[in-house]
Amino acid sequence: MNNKPTIHDIAKALNINSSTVSRALNDSPRVTLKTKEKILKKAEELGYKRNVLASSLRKNVTNTLGVIVPRISRHFFSSAIQGIEETAYLAGYNVIICQSLEQLEREQSIVNGLVEKRVDGVLISISMETLNYQHLEIVKNSNIPLVFFDRHCNEAGNSNVLIDDFKGGFDATEHLILQGNKNIVHFSGPNELEIYKNRLAGYKAALKKHNIAFNPENVIVTRLMEDDGFKSMQTILNLKQKIDAVFSANDMAAIGAIKCIKQSNLKIPDDIAIVGFSNEPISTVIEPSLTTIDQSGLEIGKTAAALILSYIENKQIPEKGENIVLKANLIERNSSKRN
Amino acid sequence: MNNKPTIHDIAKALNINSSTVSRALNDSPRVTLKTKEKILKKAEELGYKRNVLASSLRKNVTNTLGVIVPRISRHFFSSAIQGIEETAYLAGYNVIICQSLEQLEREQSIVNGLVEKRVDGVLISISMETLNYQHLEIVKNSNIPLVFFDRHCNEAGNSNVLIDDFKGGFDATEHLILQGNKNIVHFSGPNELEIYKNRLAGYKAALKKHNIAFNPENVIVTRLMEDDGFKSMQTILNLKQKIDAVFSANDMAAIGAIKCIKQSNLKIPDDIAIVGFSNEPISTVIEPSLTTIDQSGLEIGKTAAALILSYIENKQIPEKGENIVLKANLIERNSSKRN
Repeated sequence: MNNKPTIHDIAKALNINSSTVSRALNDSPRVTLKTKEKILKKAEELGYKRNVLASSLRKNVTNTLGVIVPRISRHFFSSAIQGIEETAYLAGYNVIICQSLEQLEREQSIVNGLVEKRVDGVLISISMETLNYQHLEIVKNSNIPLVFFDRHCNEAGNSNVLIDDFKGGFDATEHLILQGNKNIVHFSGPNELEIYKNRLAGYKAALKKHNIAFNPENVIVTRLMEDDGFKSMQTILNLKQKIDAVFSANDMAAIGAIKCIKQSNLKIPDDIAIVGFSNEPISTVIEPSLTTIDQSGLEIGKTAAALILSYIENKQIPEKGENIVLKANLIERNSSKRN
Repeated sequence: MNNKPTIHDIAKALNINSSTVSRALNDSPRVTLKTKEKILKKAEELGYKRNVLASSLRKNVTNTLGVIVPRISRHFFSSAIQGIEETAYLAGYNVIICQSLEQLEREQSIVNGLVEKRVDGVLISISMETLNYQHLEIVKNSNIPLVFFDRHCNEAGNSNVLIDDFKGGFDATEHLILQGNKNIVHFSGPNELEIYKNRLAGYKAALKKHNIAFNPENVIVTRLMEDDGFKSMQTILNLKQKIDAVFSANDMAAIGAIKCIKQSNLKIPDDIAIVGFSNEPISTVIEPSLTTIDQSGLEIGKTAAALILSYIENKQIPEKGENIVLKANLIERNSSKRN
């Protein structure tokens, strides 16, 4: 049709994989800066131009990604969507956003709708009700690339973009132990979700490392809304349960706990120390500011979009799936630091 | 094609307009509860079922709404998107989300892309750089319904879903005056945007009503990021300018100002009272809690989606446009209440 250079020409000239070229042009964090620079230079040299119009003329391509999240307005998800949109936009793709509202039935119906719409790829963070994954088979059977981000399924062959939930849970708990806390309660989410399983596993591993016995009664499972954190803390205080600290698997429940503790006459962190998870913007505004694990929705979104775009543009879905695990860094703030 | 009842049958049976029926079925706040109940009862009686598959078979219909916002991750916009998606989902429509990142050029390119994709309607909240609206003509010329929400254009013939920015600005300012403040600074956004013009006009009107002279130097125009509020307040304090209060046209800049005041040794509201605008979740967490104007993104989104769906389903765009103005209520909190 024309002799314009393609990503394959760039790949050939540099003797590298064309999926690396695609990722570099999609600004994937998986490609080193040095390689990106080399690829961009070669792309310019060859006169490569991403041709949005031409690519939309390819057969069966809609230049659309379908994205399913539990709830758009949750900060982590809206940041992830922002990252997905930014990366998709640069590649000439549109993004259809759907929300499961944490309901499996709705998620099923959305998945079917996106397949019917023949989106080029599906990015999903599953609902709290999603315990089996049959409704996602239709995506795979339709040869549509599927990438999980954050809330994923533990199934072989899937591609996932995650942060290191285990290490996040471990670091959060070890930080509390190193501040002198022993009796540490863990607010967890539904156990069926891998992310909560892994954060809990990290919590247990840190206790074990420091020779603190794991007490199952110290794990409180809720949906981790602000109100859940408030009520869980209220129960602890009413029962006059003696605890030193809480590691909450998200910031919202941690903030609920802080609000509850402040209403009683206890002090944070002197009486009870608190650590959250996600680094929501609200965690810097609450007093005391909340120690938490940084989980950049923006970066997860950009990475997930770059990954799925590489599958789409290479017309190849890796059979074994790929796991991209982003770092989870502890951010120490005033809710846990005893000086 | 079939004898299944349509919204027109419901309209006929009740002797009301079919656009009212469509709005009621889309749960529009513009239809009274009583009418909604009547319509739902009749719909059930006639065996009406919204047939998503059938409607997607109509000619030239993609069952897709295009939505353009400045930035997805801003809480107001993610709430609006959530509301749009919820309403669209019930009507069997998908939502493509795009962000201008406050850049006119990007907004132009997005608009063209959505028209090429033949979306059934475009919902837009314009960027801070959008001073002329020529790039939106293509939507109208393609007979695609266009509805502005929140950030709109002051042009005849447009349809807008807004909150009452003038009254919000008026109530915020009058509240500060009634608390004993006279020298009130206003943090405003770019003057080209109607919402900031109207909030400023409300501020001026409240001063006038209470015989306080308007001082143009008391209006500080920025992009209203948290950092802008911090710096504006820093300048005021450095210049030892004597002010009683600030009415900020959004919550983020108000929170920046609060952080700055707290770093100096001044007290809120005793030394300087603060009122924001939007009722972001963060406004209840900051200390002191922020007095603000409630602007429900969720409700604006639902209303805007119901309005555009009524245009799409009736295949008619009102020539004169429609304005839906939602209430803007003052929420009094500790940042302004002097007891």
